[in-house]
Amino acid sequence: MKFFEDIQVGDVFDYGRYTFTADNIKAFAVRYDPQAFHVDEAAGERSHFGALVASGWHTAVTWMRLMIDYRRRMDEAMLARGEPVAGIGPALGFRDLTWPTPVYVGDTVAYRSDVVELRLSNSRPQSGLMTFRSTGVNQHGKPVLSLVSTTFVERREKPP
Amino acid sequence: MKFFEDIQVGDVFDYGRYTFTADNIKAFAVRYDPQAFHVDEAAGERSHFGALVASGWHTAVTWMRLMIDYRRRMDEAMLARGEPVAGIGPALGFRDLTWPTPVYVGDTVAYRSDVVELRLSNSRPQSGLMTFRSTGVNQHGKPVLSLVSTTFVERREKPP
Repeated sequence: MKFFEDIQVGDVFDYGRYTFTADNIKAFAVRYDPQAFHVDEAAGERSHFGALVASGWHTAVTWMRLMIDYRRRMDEAMLARGEPVAGIGPALGFRDLTWPTPVYVGDTVAYRSDVVELRLSNSRPQSGLMTFRSTGVNQHGKPVLSLVSTTFVERREKPP
Repeated sequence: MKFFEDIQVGDVFDYGRYTFTADNIKAFAVRYDPQAFHVDEAAGERSHFGALVASGWHTAVTWMRLMIDYRRRMDEAMLARGEPVAGIGPALGFRDLTWPTPVYVGDTVAYRSDVVELRLSNSRPQSGLMTFRSTGVNQHGKPVLSLVSTTFVERREKPP
C-alpha cells in the first residue's frame, strides 16, 4: 500500500472486473447464503427477482477479494521499484452498504474505490485513517454494490 | 417468517452458535479474503492480531447462514402447526457494520438479532419494513460483530 501521506482525497483504486456465473453464484450461496433464489434457477424465476441472482454478500466478498489482489499487485510493483510499502489495516468496519440492483447470471461487475476522507488517528498515531467509498457497477452501468469503509494506513513520518 | 403484524420492537431472534476453527477460517479466507493473517498461523502471530484470526466477512456471512437456517426452522415449525408463513426480503442493505473484537481459532460466537424499528412501506404496501440490529458475541461476552439491517416482511392484512 502507499503510505498515508501519499494518498489524496479523490484518489481512485481500480480493482478490475468479475463475471458472476451460475456456478460461482451457487457455490457461494450453498455455503453462506442458501436462500432459494441464490441456489436454484427455478426458485429464482418464481421469486421477485425473476431469475437466479447472486447473494449480496457474494458481491461484497468479491469486492474484498479483488481489493486484496489489487493491493498485493501494488505492493509487488512498489517493491520491484525498490520503494518501501506501507502497512494497511485493520479495517474498522463499514457503513451504508447497499445493493441497488440485483446481480444476475452472466453479469460482469467492475469494482473500484474512491478515497473520500483522510485523517490522523488518536489511538494509533503511527497510522492515519482512510475512508473510501467502494462500488460495483454492472455492464449496463448500474450500481450493484456500494459501501463506505475506514481502515488504518501506515504513515511514513511517525510521530516521536 | 412471522407476518409483519406479529413482530414487535424488542423481539429477539436467537440464531445459535458457531465455532471458528483454523480450517474453516482458512477455507473462507483463501477464497474471499486472502490476507496473510487470515490464511497462515505464522503470519497471524507476526501481525497486530498476534495469531490467526477470522476474516470479518467470514464472521458476517456466518451470521447470514445461521439466520437463514433459523428462518427455515421457524417456517417449518409454523407450517407443521398449520400456520401460514410470511415472505421476507429483499434486504435493502446494511449500515454500521463493526468488528469490535477479533475472532481467534477456537472462539465460539453466539449470534442474535433484536428488532429495533417497524414501519410500513410506501413502495411495497403489501409489506412492512423491519429494521434489526444483529450481533455476534464470543465466549467471553465480547462483541465481535454488529450491524443494522432493514428488510421487507409480508403483511397479513394487505391493503386493497
